[in-house]
Amino acid sequence: MTEDSFIAALRSFATHPAARGLVDDVAVLDVGGAALVLTHDMVVEGLHFLPDDAAVDVAWKLVAVNMSDLAAKGATPLGVLMGAGLARGEAWAADFADGLAAALRHFAVPLLGGDTVVMPRDWPVTLGLTAIGRAPSGGAPSRAGARAGDDLWVSGTIGDAGLGLMMRQGRLQGGASSLVQAYTHPAPDLALGRALAPLVTAMADVSDGLLIDAGRIASASGIGLTVALDAVPLSEAWREVRGDGAEERVAAATMGDDHRLLFTAPPERAVAILAAGMRHGAALTRVGGCGAGQGLRLSYNGTPTSLPARLGYVHGE
Amino acid sequence: MTEDSFIAALRSFATHPAARGLVDDVAVLDVGGAALVLTHDMVVEGLHFLPDDAAVDVAWKLVAVNMSDLAAKGATPLGVLMGAGLARGEAWAADFADGLAAALRHFAVPLLGGDTVVMPRDWPVTLGLTAIGRAPSGGAPSRAGARAGDDLWVSGTIGDAGLGLMMRQGRLQGGASSLVQAYTHPAPDLALGRALAPLVTAMADVSDGLLIDAGRIASASGIGLTVALDAVPLSEAWREVRGDGAEERVAAATMGDDHRLLFTAPPERAVAILAAGMRHGAALTRVGGCGAGQGLRLSYNGTPTSLPARLGYVHGE
Repeated sequence: MTEDSFIAALRSFATHPAARGLVDDVAVLDVGGAALVLTHDMVVEGLHFLPDDAAVDVAWKLVAVNMSDLAAKGATPLGVLMGAGLARGEAWAADFADGLAAALRHFAVPLLGGDTVVMPRDWPVTLGLTAIGRAPSGGAPSRAGARAGDDLWVSGTIGDAGLGLMMRQGRLQGGASSLVQAYTHPAPDLALGRALAPLVTAMADVSDGLLIDAGRIASASGIGLTVALDAVPLSEAWREVRGDGAEERVAAATMGDDHRLLFTAPPERAVAILAAGMRHGAALTRVGGCGAGQGLRLSYNGTPTSLPARLGYVHGE
Repeated sequence: MTEDSFIAALRSFATHPAARGLVDDVAVLDVGGAALVLTHDMVVEGLHFLPDDAAVDVAWKLVAVNMSDLAAKGATPLGVLMGAGLARGEAWAADFADGLAAALRHFAVPLLGGDTVVMPRDWPVTLGLTAIGRAPSGGAPSRAGARAGDDLWVSGTIGDAGLGLMMRQGRLQGGASSLVQAYTHPAPDLALGRALAPLVTAMADVSDGLLIDAGRIASASGIGLTVALDAVPLSEAWREVRGDGAEERVAAATMGDDHRLLFTAPPERAVAILAAGMRHGAALTRVGGCGAGQGLRLSYNGTPTSLPARLGYVHGE
């Protein structure tokens, strides 16, 4: 089973407008004059983190992946609830609690409640976090608002966390420590998300890979979307170990765990977008554009090129 | 490790007032002009359900245990987010989705979002659900409001689900099918919770056992609380297989999974409480009272009797 068939079953009855058809990573629920942004992401040992990842890093990731979803909606976090299936004994749990406290402090979000289940020691640690945020006053951007003529933008650099994972797995030697840092400490920028929200037509985070997440915007918006491979922003650390040819750029754009902001906006907003990035110390790069037709296309130095068979990380494959 | 030591670590930084000190099963968060009741409960294969429990029943339990927390706060559900760690293949997942749709329909609560992770087939199915409700206009009762002189009440009968679990495990023969039904289909009554909320001083659900949950009210409220064993309501099905002496009543009051409402109220509200029960077709029974001192005490036919070593189900023991 892939997760897609299960989600298709859920989608058949998740018809409340707040669910946004389960295509948007978040729900947006109107309550008492406010709009809440709600998200729940899981982090599971052996699937989302390595058994020897430090407990404090696992806690960081659990919080950061959910904050990344809030950032992509321009939301301000109000609180989190955690479901913690623990299995690694007292010391691991104590370190995890310390890491959780530090991560929540960093993102200025309180722990409101949840559930703890102590499982047998040989079971995988299985964590879930629900994050609750307040939508920006102009509304939370969805994946579905991109229009033909819009530019496609991404924040930061792409692929670093993927290389960091390979280094942690011993599959890549000699990379810079910043790559491992990108894997263990994804750093979504909530303030940047809030600054961009009024400027964008669609926004999501890059969690499973730039290409697969761009394809989801194209599909939800019903437009054609071309990613310019040559424009995909690569870090110096990436170039040092992998270079920056077309093949390497496809690799970067199909690795997961980036937790960058991916968004579309009309070209006339480019100056305001770049100004917002500068105010928040974030590099923002135009990596493509929206046009006629349907679905995702690729170009390299202006020439159309074929899509890879695999656009990103698909759970259950 | 027991879950208590981990929760103590969380409590040291879960200082936001909405967290209620993590002693109340729920958080109560003021947003805009509304107060939200937030809860997250996990349901894990091998710990909260049996590997051969039907997938539709597992889905029911996941929804019901969370609705039980909302019912105990008099809340009206607004939506749920699910974290589903699935591991049993396509057919199980399809049945689970059907059961989820039916349970959500029963409680009139929409699925808003969440996350699905497909895990290897031999891993335990690990589920979490966040339920979001609207607090009643007079506020959501806590565990901490019981006062000396209050009566202690419980809804329905106690211990049926515990016997049902024993039947499902083959540890008890000849019990009525209603006992298994109590285990597979706990039926929290949201309307009853809403009717009781304005009348009570404290309210919680019985999830880990009547005695342990009564002890939590006593502890949170800083009062002494005496449970009258002879008053603990037992079903006819329970009496048929186990009788109703003091020892059996202790057994009933220390079994988990009841998902009944347990609450305190001043004696002068007894008539209004019984009337609310009649309107909602629920038997409500006075099972004790609050007095001076601290902590939980037991009596049987008016005579003090000693507490059992084990007051209920404690995860991680």
